[in-house]
Amino acid sequence: MTTPPADLTQAVLDTCNALAGHTEVPGEINRPFLCPCTADVHDHLKAWAGRLGLSTRVDAVGNLRARREADVPGAPTLYLGSHLDTVPNAGKYDGVLGVALGYALVEALGARPLPYAIEVVAFSEEEGVRFGVPFIGSRALVGTADPLLDLPDAQAVTVRQAIRAYGLDPQELKAAEVTGAALGYFEIHIEQGPVLQAQCAALGVVEAIAGQNRFLLRFEGQASHAGTTPMPLRKDALAAAARFVVEAEQVARSTPGLVATVGVMQAEPGAINVVSGVVNASLDIRHARDGVRQEAVEYLLDALQGFCRERGVSVQVTPRMEEAATPMSGPFKELLHRAADELNLPHPELVSGAGHDAQIMATRMPAGMLFVRSPNALSHHPDEMVNAQDVSDALRVGLRFLELLAGEVQA
Amino acid sequence: MTTPPADLTQAVLDTCNALAGHTEVPGEINRPFLCPCTADVHDHLKAWAGRLGLSTRVDAVGNLRARREADVPGAPTLYLGSHLDTVPNAGKYDGVLGVALGYALVEALGARPLPYAIEVVAFSEEEGVRFGVPFIGSRALVGTADPLLDLPDAQAVTVRQAIRAYGLDPQELKAAEVTGAALGYFEIHIEQGPVLQAQCAALGVVEAIAGQNRFLLRFEGQASHAGTTPMPLRKDALAAAARFVVEAEQVARSTPGLVATVGVMQAEPGAINVVSGVVNASLDIRHARDGVRQEAVEYLLDALQGFCRERGVSVQVTPRMEEAATPMSGPFKELLHRAADELNLPHPELVSGAGHDAQIMATRMPAGMLFVRSPNALSHHPDEMVNAQDVSDALRVGLRFLELLAGEVQA
Repeated sequence: MTTPPADLTQAVLDTCNALAGHTEVPGEINRPFLCPCTADVHDHLKAWAGRLGLSTRVDAVGNLRARREADVPGAPTLYLGSHLDTVPNAGKYDGVLGVALGYALVEALGARPLPYAIEVVAFSEEEGVRFGVPFIGSRALVGTADPLLDLPDAQAVTVRQAIRAYGLDPQELKAAEVTGAALGYFEIHIEQGPVLQAQCAALGVVEAIAGQNRFLLRFEGQASHAGTTPMPLRKDALAAAARFVVEAEQVARSTPGLVATVGVMQAEPGAINVVSGVVNASLDIRHARDGVRQEAVEYLLDALQGFCRERGVSVQVTPRMEEAATPMSGPFKELLHRAADELNLPHPELVSGAGHDAQIMATRMPAGMLFVRSPNALSHHPDEMVNAQDVSDALRVGLRFLELLAGEVQA
Repeated sequence: MTTPPADLTQAVLDTCNALAGHTEVPGEINRPFLCPCTADVHDHLKAWAGRLGLSTRVDAVGNLRARREADVPGAPTLYLGSHLDTVPNAGKYDGVLGVALGYALVEALGARPLPYAIEVVAFSEEEGVRFGVPFIGSRALVGTADPLLDLPDAQAVTVRQAIRAYGLDPQELKAAEVTGAALGYFEIHIEQGPVLQAQCAALGVVEAIAGQNRFLLRFEGQASHAGTTPMPLRKDALAAAARFVVEAEQVARSTPGLVATVGVMQAEPGAINVVSGVVNASLDIRHARDGVRQEAVEYLLDALQGFCRERGVSVQVTPRMEEAATPMSGPFKELLHRAADELNLPHPELVSGAGHDAQIMATRMPAGMLFVRSPNALSHHPDEMVNAQDVSDALRVGLRFLELLAGEVQA
């Protein structure tokens, strides 16, 4: 077992700091897909790749790919990575930490021979901010980005045009796809939630990326006078909506691992002395197992009808998204647990409620993820943090994972 | 018992139609306090008063007062009336119907001697639209309008300035007060609610004007990611607010006569995939008996704290209004029941959930109200309606009430 040099942790943190300086909006971190400063970020990372002797290329959707060849011809490739784009007014670590750790892991490996090649991929797009659809970078690697080329952004610029404007050629999209034997994909990412902090663990092994449904709900009752309309004669859209919120909370609380959220809730006309005629609301529901999620959705939508019927209210349910859960690779999880265990670190398993490139890569190869604790659960926020010790632990566990994986490939 | 001539009902409806034509906003009915077209409305009514031989005056706050003297010197005065101002984009009948019926009742009485004088008061302000405080007209009659003179409207024009601009003298306010013996106040008004329609009754005797509390509620939790925040680690402001809505509805449903309404409900940040950090909401609660209302308020505000505590949410409760209930005069109610009974009309008793000038006049003299059915419960709306037959019934019951009252005064 090799211990990575201590200054590598500092190099990772320095890289996160340096990349935060490349932004489209002075004073905050803001790097949408293929924005001009992406090239500066790439230059920074290419310099590190150069010091490590990695060959680099930028593929047709702007992913920066740095390659360490295997010592054996025809050896499979392990993909390491995360993304470089950000939400508006972002923190320093969402995505970038995983990219920097990819380079640091290659540096820690040094010259030792490995039975697999490593490609560190810095995905160009994961957040879905510019074109409303996430994962353009990783979709290019698995061959599903082509249908997105004609999507427009808010200025009616298409993905295809954005690629050209950045100086790349959308005709080369095919060449971005993974070819040859893929050993798998491994991503380190901040948790963006409170679970590891609550368990006093620096790191967690991702069990699965949750599947999710999102719905818009429009309740229609009858606006009426709050003073002159007796309770039995009301058609109170808000009362029906509120009853639904309580049920969604109750179902989620009593179903292990389920999260259900009503995040939108606006009553109309919205006056203190008027019974609500219309309420616009939403439902977001997620679980690591699709069956559990689907059963909860079915129950809640059925209960919803009852709550509305009781109150003479109608409801329109508009599905906005349904995504299946993505279990992480069993062998990868096993190796991550073993690596952390050997290092005497706690290694709880947890579900990722947020989406990640790993769920796209998992459609083509085994995928695994390691989460790094998010202090105060802050993410998508300028105060996003990591503990330096946690980053050091991630580097140690990641390196041990690579060693153990080499052993498995050789065996 | 005298039957009013059939064409008097038509005269009432024609008056409502004619007054609807006097508005500040072409195409809709909009007559705020002391707007210029108030003078045209007064001219219309003064012409009717002239035909009836009534003396008229406009007092210092713009109330039009038409007087039929008693045959006996020193006889008490019965005040009949309602208001002429409107909400924006109003219907034709809210207030105006009661004023027109006041004139029609005097016309129906003809020349017959009465042991009391009648003053038909067309109040200049009841809705509270222009200065945010209602009942300026009736407050002048009971001597409580003086503290309102310096209230500003949205253009920073005070009540005092508005009175002067209209051509009246605020110094004359004292002369608007009721002097001498007051027999009482009687107001006919549209119900503005669904109760009489549900009971298939044209008319209803008002038992009391409900007391009410209004509160603003601000829930503060912690905004967080809908996917990455497990249920036990949430501080969901909307879940707490929704639980409160359900409890308020439940308490009102199980307490006869209580109405409780949450009309404002807005979740922030209001995104489909974000747990709500802040919710702004409201509570409006009313009942005919103050004790019942106060007990419900106490229970609900206590329960509210529990719902918030369970969820790690804090709540700020800001009282916005508390008004005591106003019971209508027992003898007036009794005479109204008797009048309707003699005419073989149903005469359910009901609570007014909305405020009326009668609650102000009741601070100075016995007050009674008769409600006229509101088809489809529409009010404060251009489609506000009355049935002609219901208006005819109101005229008959009103006239019989005046006759019975004369008998009581003589006895």
